[in-house]
Amino acid sequence: MTKAAIIGAAGLSGLELIRLLARHGGVELSVVTSGKHEGRAVGEAFPELSRVGLTFRGHDATLDGCDVAFLAVPNQASLEQAPRLLDQGVRVIDLSGVFRLADVAVFQRFYGLTHTAPEALRQAVFGLPEAFRERIAGARLVANPGCYPTGALIGLLPLGELAGTLAAPPVIDAKSGVSGAGGRVEDDSSNFMEVNENFRAYKVFSHQHTPEIEQYLAQCTPYDPATQGAVVFTPHLLPISRGILSTIYLRFQQPIPPRELRRRYARFAEAEPFVTLLPEGRGAELKMANYTNDCVVSLHPDDSGRNWVVLTAMDNLLKGAAGQAVQNMNLMFGFGETEGLV
Amino acid sequence: MTKAAIIGAAGLSGLELIRLLARHGGVELSVVTSGKHEGRAVGEAFPELSRVGLTFRGHDATLDGCDVAFLAVPNQASLEQAPRLLDQGVRVIDLSGVFRLADVAVFQRFYGLTHTAPEALRQAVFGLPEAFRERIAGARLVANPGCYPTGALIGLLPLGELAGTLAAPPVIDAKSGVSGAGGRVEDDSSNFMEVNENFRAYKVFSHQHTPEIEQYLAQCTPYDPATQGAVVFTPHLLPISRGILSTIYLRFQQPIPPRELRRRYARFAEAEPFVTLLPEGRGAELKMANYTNDCVVSLHPDDSGRNWVVLTAMDNLLKGAAGQAVQNMNLMFGFGETEGLV
Amino acid sequence: MTKAAIIGAAGLSGLELIRLLARHGGVELSVVTSGKHEGRAVGEAFPELSRVGLTFRGHDATLDGCDVAFLAVPNQASLEQAPRLLDQGVRVIDLSGVFRLADVAVFQRFYGLTHTAPEALRQAVFGLPEAFRERIAGARLVANPGCYPTGALIGLLPLGELAGTLAAPPVIDAKSGVSGAGGRVEDDSSNFMEVNENFRAYKVFSHQHTPEIEQYLAQCTPYDPATQGAVVFTPHLLPISRGILSTIYLRFQQPIPPRELRRRYARFAEAEPFVTLLPEGRGAELKMANYTNDCVVSLHPDDSGRNWVVLTAMDNLLKGAAGQAVQNMNLMFGFGETEGLV
Amino acid sequence: MTKAAIIGAAGLSGLELIRLLARHGGVELSVVTSGKHEGRAVGEAFPELSRVGLTFRGHDATLDGCDVAFLAVPNQASLEQAPRLLDQGVRVIDLSGVFRLADVAVFQRFYGLTHTAPEALRQAVFGLPEAFRERIAGARLVANPGCYPTGALIGLLPLGELAGTLAAPPVIDAKSGVSGAGGRVEDDSSNFMEVNENFRAYKVFSHQHTPEIEQYLAQCTPYDPATQGAVVFTPHLLPISRGILSTIYLRFQQPIPPRELRRRYARFAEAEPFVTLLPEGRGAELKMANYTNDCVVSLHPDDSGRNWVVLTAMDNLLKGAAGQAVQNMNLMFGFGETEGLV
Repeated sequence: MTKAAIIGAAGLSGLELIRLLARHGGVELSVVTSGKHEGRAVGEAFPELSRVGLTFRGHDATLDGCDVAFLAVPNQASLEQAPRLLDQGVRVIDLSGVFRLADVAVFQRFYGLTHTAPEALRQAVFGLPEAFRERIAGARLVANPGCYPTGALIGLLPLGELAGTLAAPPVIDAKSGVSGAGGRVEDDSSNFMEVNENFRAYKVFSHQHTPEIEQYLAQCTPYDPATQGAVVFTPHLLPISRGILSTIYLRFQQPIPPRELRRRYARFAEAEPFVTLLPEGRGAELKMANYTNDCVVSLHPDDSGRNWVVLTAMDNLLKGAAGQAVQNMNLMFGFGETEGLV
Repeated sequence: MTKAAIIGAAGLSGLELIRLLARHGGVELSVVTSGKHEGRAVGEAFPELSRVGLTFRGHDATLDGCDVAFLAVPNQASLEQAPRLLDQGVRVIDLSGVFRLADVAVFQRFYGLTHTAPEALRQAVFGLPEAFRERIAGARLVANPGCYPTGALIGLLPLGELAGTLAAPPVIDAKSGVSGAGGRVEDDSSNFMEVNENFRAYKVFSHQHTPEIEQYLAQCTPYDPATQGAVVFTPHLLPISRGILSTIYLRFQQPIPPRELRRRYARFAEAEPFVTLLPEGRGAELKMANYTNDCVVSLHPDDSGRNWVVLTAMDNLLKGAAGQAVQNMNLMFGFGETEGLV
Repeated sequence: MTKAAIIGAAGLSGLELIRLLARHGGVELSVVTSGKHEGRAVGEAFPELSRVGLTFRGHDATLDGCDVAFLAVPNQASLEQAPRLLDQGVRVIDLSGVFRLADVAVFQRFYGLTHTAPEALRQAVFGLPEAFRERIAGARLVANPGCYPTGALIGLLPLGELAGTLAAPPVIDAKSGVSGAGGRVEDDSSNFMEVNENFRAYKVFSHQHTPEIEQYLAQCTPYDPATQGAVVFTPHLLPISRGILSTIYLRFQQPIPPRELRRRYARFAEAEPFVTLLPEGRGAELKMANYTNDCVVSLHPDDSGRNWVVLTAMDNLLKGAAGQAVQNMNLMFGFGETEGLV
Repeated sequence: MTKAAIIGAAGLSGLELIRLLARHGGVELSVVTSGKHEGRAVGEAFPELSRVGLTFRGHDATLDGCDVAFLAVPNQASLEQAPRLLDQGVRVIDLSGVFRLADVAVFQRFYGLTHTAPEALRQAVFGLPEAFRERIAGARLVANPGCYPTGALIGLLPLGELAGTLAAPPVIDAKSGVSGAGGRVEDDSSNFMEVNENFRAYKVFSHQHTPEIEQYLAQCTPYDPATQGAVVFTPHLLPISRGILSTIYLRFQQPIPPRELRRRYARFAEAEPFVTLLPEGRGAELKMANYTNDCVVSLHPDDSGRNWVVLTAMDNLLKGAAGQAVQNMNLMFGFGETEGLV
């Protein structure tokens, strides 16, 4: 049995990790930590997890014998804990944003933090299995992707060479439920009275997931932000608990025959256990993806074939966070990729 | 007192019209019709309107002496009723889509209906006061704008000459509550279990409001779809009751200095009683506009100034339907433009 | 013109008061205060109120020349401010809970506060027009009722003499939207992720509105808690923004003929401008009352006639707070009772 | 492997059954039927179930070799299909209401149907494992309980002898999400615009689950409706997708010491794999039970000990329908009771 720890287990992603690992056949969940709930039984704090026979420990709990640690803590805490755990020989899957951006200057601009763990950053592998499956298997530190970038990149990467023929930057108009919008970080912004029956964009042209999308799009396809323009990304807050729908607008220099684009996406989806391409005429909806680890994709051309809309739907707490983290763990430890996730 | 009738008064827009006209100082609401509720007192069918001392009549009720009729009926019914009412000398404010598109062939393609009232169509004035205030005042038939076009056009028309310098078609990513998404027309699509905690796009590249937006954008600005490309518009269904937020993406050939764009929008808003431009740094949200007749606008440039996001928020049942209809009536009958609406 | 001030105008009830008073024909709203927004224009902080040409002042603003002050502040602040304002000759409508309970010991037990304004308490009149209309007209200090007690008492007071024949205490099972459940007071309890798609009871057998219901039921009817038992009241939190539905269970010693009970409630409703009794066979729903100042009531007997369910629906921010406060102001200053409220 | 069929697999309960059985270790799901989707692959109709490699067949599909059939069809269809399947030697778990009430006259009054399968009715066992575990194991026909009765009975049965000492009938004020409120049966009643931001009671004193609760309460405890009074039950419709919270009011002839009542409920819960009793001071909430097969219970005495509130929370689609059906199947076929459910 692989022994696992979850640091920050009482947050939304942490709780989802508890749920998933508790029924994963190959894993023994041995440590869960929480500052707020230290010393309380998991089932006492969260009756819906009353079958989990563990007690929350403090964040400084020793992880003796743990093979893998999931870090579900704020950015600053990940910067501190990841190097320490790696030094102890524990493999780390980090759900924060601090090991995703290669360029420290960009990181510091978007996160407002000094990067204090450059060595760990160098060895980090971006945990998007659809792009980096093999490197993930051998990684000691996996940077689990952001929720928005997961939905955006799964909608963009199948373009392959065609990304070099975009006439304008892709426009990613993304809408997230509250659990994915980092609601608990900003003051008041997740108060029921502010969110219910309301809808709004936030961090227009300034969200930290913008460079993450751009970096990996440029790395995996010929898209060149310098000549083709910076990726445009706008997150919005949906008055629901979970799910992210991304509406991605593509404008090509030349019309793309529907069959051609569809073939690329179909080939991509067939090779992926957690990507579903919908048949022509159907559009991706949150309810098709929520409570699963799947990313559901649909393709919509205009009459001319120059403009396309790609829709991707995904559960931000699963494929966008805890589910993808377990998928990465499966790759790292040689389990079947879908183990514990279907 | 101006005497008014509402044909189709038991639908969502019709009920909103009852509410507004019941407290309008210059109007006597004398006829309300409903097929389903014919013969019932308004307050019996809708206890929240128990102060309205009227009884629903059938759709064929005579409108003796009515000065104005609001048509809040399906498209086909408007095609039939509008000419008949105009012949009787009643001025008409039509909330359907049948008198908005100048090109009958485009109408027939998007609406799937034959246009049987071409003469009425010729005299119809598009009821967007922000663009056609003077013509509305003299109109006998006003085509009240669609809810999506209202939010899109108020976000685009202030561009004026700059619309000719767009490097790519504007992308309008719109999100509407159920009352604005025509939910009651499509089967099942407004069932609570289908909508709640869900989110989806619909009619991608095929919504009938696309040509409406394009026609009036081209009519009021130098934007030329033939050379600059067809307007891109995607409607989405929000799991809420009311409100439309439009996220409009503009990409210019040259950077536009923030002050320059802001000045144009500010000048536009200052002249309009129902357009509010937010100060820099704030973004439009539904809660700022719902239950009012205002359209709230905010402007967001990227660092380069080549890409802009314009957000507009609006209550689809008020500024997007019944409220704007009353605003048009105010112009047609010489009331103050905000009478009964603030 | 009557000059009015709102102390604590940026809370939910305060904003609702601004909205109502801004369009009240007989009132000039001259002072609005807010600790958080002091110095900001109302329309800057709340774009939906952009037509209100006032600036928030601090809570210590002088109220020179104000005839009436609405206190929409926490309990402790009301205890301090009400006596001070009364001394200045300003009539006060207090929306907090501190002037409603006659028995200071009961107050202290349920509110956890020492009552420091016993003199003001002695002159306070309970602002439920349906029970105390005449005394309100002459009052210098009105204690605006709690939202739950309003819905409960309007469902119970029409019983009149019959309240003395109840075989068991009335059971009031009340369900409130977040704005009425004091969500902003308790920590975390109004976080979207805690409330959305959830439902729960709270403060079972310990809510401070229990003695308020009991005191006025006993005062206005022969119901005697000492012999008939303490009133049972359970509040619940609905995952919606506004509205309170109360399901009231009555068990009589003897069957009550349906016509008899219905006659009592009908007589009561007819005399009241803001109480609507639904016809037989229809049940009160929140949507019939929300965004109005009405309390909608329905009656449901079982076959035996010994058990009755009374349903009352009400907008907690209007009839349950700001609307009722304006109704009280209308009585105090001789306006029509429905002025500004329909 | 036990071979299973789901008749009516495309409804809400049916889909939940597919999900559960697809990952049940001891069951091979071999037939799923749907009138509407006949001939379509499950994953085509419902992308969220794309891993299920089955095609919907018509309701008249032969069930060769099936050991058990789940009937998730309307009442009338169950009346017809259950006897036919029993004749073929298939064991049946019926989710409709037609085999729950022993008294055919009561059935006909509440369901408006003639009971055409009295023989099947006689052999039916009520599938509430907490009350009838042993009889279920041997049953050929299990009548899966209604969702409301499940939540009510789990809150009442632990009373045991104390039920005979109630001074008034238990009052069960139940609130259900739309999937449990039979929303799809009544016209319009599950339209988003009717449900969202609304709340209402329905079928007051006339819901068909009332006699079901009463019958099994009387059968399992000394409670006697004839002398103690008919059970009072009011269902309400919550604007959410799933979950039922029942607030149960008990009034005893004599005070019950808190320790005494708590001990009874604790003993009951300890023996049950799917009943969780919360510690003192905590109240049951939907979020503690949703997406699980657990019923979560909490106890709340008043100061006198004569009045108690029992809260039960439950997922109506799991413990209230499909989950409990699988629990029953586990008992019938000798699987571990929690197999496939945790």
